[in-house]
Amino acid sequence: MDLYANNRIPQAVIERLPLYLRYLTKLQREGLDIISSHELGKRMGVRSSQIRKDFALFGEFGVRGMGYDTEVLLSMVKKLLGLEKTWNMAFLGICDLSIALSQYEPLTEHGFCAIAFFDDESSMVGKRINGIIVRELSSLPEVVRDLDIKMGVITLPVSKVQEGADLLVAAGVKGIWNFTPEKINVPLDVEVCNEDLSIGPLTLSYFLSR
Amino acid sequence: MDLYANNRIPQAVIERLPLYLRYLTKLQREGLDIISSHELGKRMGVRSSQIRKDFALFGEFGVRGMGYDTEVLLSMVKKLLGLEKTWNMAFLGICDLSIALSQYEPLTEHGFCAIAFFDDESSMVGKRINGIIVRELSSLPEVVRDLDIKMGVITLPVSKVQEGADLLVAAGVKGIWNFTPEKINVPLDVEVCNEDLSIGPLTLSYFLSR
Repeated sequence: MDLYANNRIPQAVIERLPLYLRYLTKLQREGLDIISSHELGKRMGVRSSQIRKDFALFGEFGVRGMGYDTEVLLSMVKKLLGLEKTWNMAFLGICDLSIALSQYEPLTEHGFCAIAFFDDESSMVGKRINGIIVRELSSLPEVVRDLDIKMGVITLPVSKVQEGADLLVAAGVKGIWNFTPEKINVPLDVEVCNEDLSIGPLTLSYFLSR
Repeated sequence: MDLYANNRIPQAVIERLPLYLRYLTKLQREGLDIISSHELGKRMGVRSSQIRKDFALFGEFGVRGMGYDTEVLLSMVKKLLGLEKTWNMAFLGICDLSIALSQYEPLTEHGFCAIAFFDDESSMVGKRINGIIVRELSSLPEVVRDLDIKMGVITLPVSKVQEGADLLVAAGVKGIWNFTPEKINVPLDVEVCNEDLSIGPLTLSYFLSR
């Protein structure tokens, strides 16, 4: 079964993949070779019947009455998530947040690799972040090609966001992680993931005000 | 109408409040005093009928055929979100990410104020982050009371997460923003917002692998 070619996996299951990755990685570290859907469900807060249904989509991994082989399952989830290889990332806009993200262990441990930094401020260009030199935004297309960069992370000032996205798209980047409040316009074959870190505290302040 | 007391606002509308906050703040900065539901919907990517329905829940703000008063609407959204006051926050666990979050403008501009830092590593205790001294985790209850801290942000090592949450809860904190992969157990009257920054890149790697 070619997991990469088919489209049989429903959106809701795709959205659970990062959660499976997290819990299976943890189980592997704990040295648990076999896990039942019941135990995994309890840990994840997901019904065990849902877990059995999800895993049945990936193939036949469970042994009736025994459980699932943690390692086999984890490697399947990693394969589905495209984590068999390294993802070179470019960071557009240098700030505390982008520097923190570029070294964020939950990302680096799964092969997301900060390999280039760009900024629109000439005072930032030439500085080093973890040994990597900050480049001018205009040099992005060449660098993306040379370093085989597949994803771009945008933390640019609002007025520069679309320009940064356009440069990424023109250079062939198909995945953009956008930390700005700007809506980015991209062609249909480019995936944008919008992240809004203010939603968490705003949700809390809403509930705390009731 | 007491907006704080009633429970008439559906969950989906509550979830749109941060989005309204973002766009109305932007409109105000642009100097746009009046906005039609049509124009606002276009900018936000939300149907104008949905916007009219949402705003009708808050009261009568629109003038038929004219539009909404940006300022009035923004102040209503801020009131609903509890942004009329400052929210003092404690950060548990010092790392690049928590330092970046403590100064993150989209939060500080709405009154979320990093006022205390705690760490479980003795080598961190006593250091200064933006002029604020890092304290021992054990001193948290006293500091929370003294500084009127209402929210806790957890970026502690996995093994310390529940301990940190327990300290916050015991000190009377009712809102926790959790950046760790640990599930936190709290009483029913405490709101936890779980943030998983690996989901964005994992979603991208999934799509880029198709």
